[in-house]
Amino acid sequence: MYAHVVAWQRALDEAGMPIAAWRIHRRIGMSGGLFARGVARELGRPLAGEELEEIQRRHGAIFLELLPDRRPLPGAVELLAELRELGILHGIATSGRRPEIDRSLEALGVPADTVVVERGDVRRAKPEPDLFETCAERLGADPRVSYVVGDAVWDLLAARRAGMLSVGLLSGGYGEDELIRAGAFRVYRDADELRISLDELGVLP
Amino acid sequence: MYAHVVAWQRALDEAGMPIAAWRIHRRIGMSGGLFARGVARELGRPLAGEELEEIQRRHGAIFLELLPDRRPLPGAVELLAELRELGILHGIATSGRRPEIDRSLEALGVPADTVVVERGDVRRAKPEPDLFETCAERLGADPRVSYVVGDAVWDLLAARRAGMLSVGLLSGGYGEDELIRAGAFRVYRDADELRISLDELGVLP
Repeated sequence: MYAHVVAWQRALDEAGMPIAAWRIHRRIGMSGGLFARGVARELGRPLAGEELEEIQRRHGAIFLELLPDRRPLPGAVELLAELRELGILHGIATSGRRPEIDRSLEALGVPADTVVVERGDVRRAKPEPDLFETCAERLGADPRVSYVVGDAVWDLLAARRAGMLSVGLLSGGYGEDELIRAGAFRVYRDADELRISLDELGVLP
Repeated sequence: MYAHVVAWQRALDEAGMPIAAWRIHRRIGMSGGLFARGVARELGRPLAGEELEEIQRRHGAIFLELLPDRRPLPGAVELLAELRELGILHGIATSGRRPEIDRSLEALGVPADTVVVERGDVRRAKPEPDLFETCAERLGADPRVSYVVGDAVWDLLAARRAGMLSVGLLSGGYGEDELIRAGAFRVYRDADELRISLDELGVLP
């Protein structure tokens, strides 16, 4: 999240669009179209086409410079391993795209048979519910008893639109209250705390 | 704030201390000693002396790479100009040190006769109240009717300890509730919103 903020801020700045970092932070994870519209509103003029693509290219390049290695957040590998061990149905729904996400999935130790829904699999990005709906469909899971785990308010809004419950994690740099107000049933500090708190969610194999 | 998070995270990572970015974020602005103790607790071992100094050096170098120019946050220049114009007593109290802060003060258009208290002027860093107490003393201002304006919970805790009121800004990437719970009387999005809301604070020339 933080490397994304710095990368977007620098890419926008290079294009002559200085925007406060916290405003970028609070928009990361929404669809690219909504993000561009938000930036355009700050600037007071439209932002699209070639200009927007160039900023996106620069963002990607700067982000890779800042964070060349993909590393799992604390506890993420262990949480996924525990879900597998307990036989709790789960999948990964990400705004990222293949092949960019492949190294992240590898770092997370996700087996090849895990359901992974990526941006290219669905029509609309968050906060639309497509990623989560498709994930539940592929899992054969009932949305009404499924949890979305996310660390940005856009995950939690998308969960609501999908008719799912949600759990917030603090890794995205949002405050607990922001996540609760966006609809999180519970908020944990990280995947580690979520793993040892699975009983509080009433999830069953 | 965001460049500081990325710089600290990379400096700590290079030293073999991977720490989640949001945990660094929520600690920036507290004293270096408290910060190091917080990091040490994450690591489960002490962090001090030469090792800590090397990390601090790397943080400084990476930060400068990320953000070579000092630029005022949106509305900061205009807010300071309005306070001067209205004759509202004000000063700047910063955890930074001279000469590093000189370029920031220049970018803010702060006249030479403005009261500026920097880290080197006081014994203890935030959340101790020294910076704000010294600033009020130099201004000849009554702490009980003074406001601290800050964008991290450490500013607001230090304000409480100084017996002052406080105003939170969202530029630090905290959520509004976090700032309110730390004691902020009001929270504004940025210095611009604060400037047009001075009446809500009951400040008088």
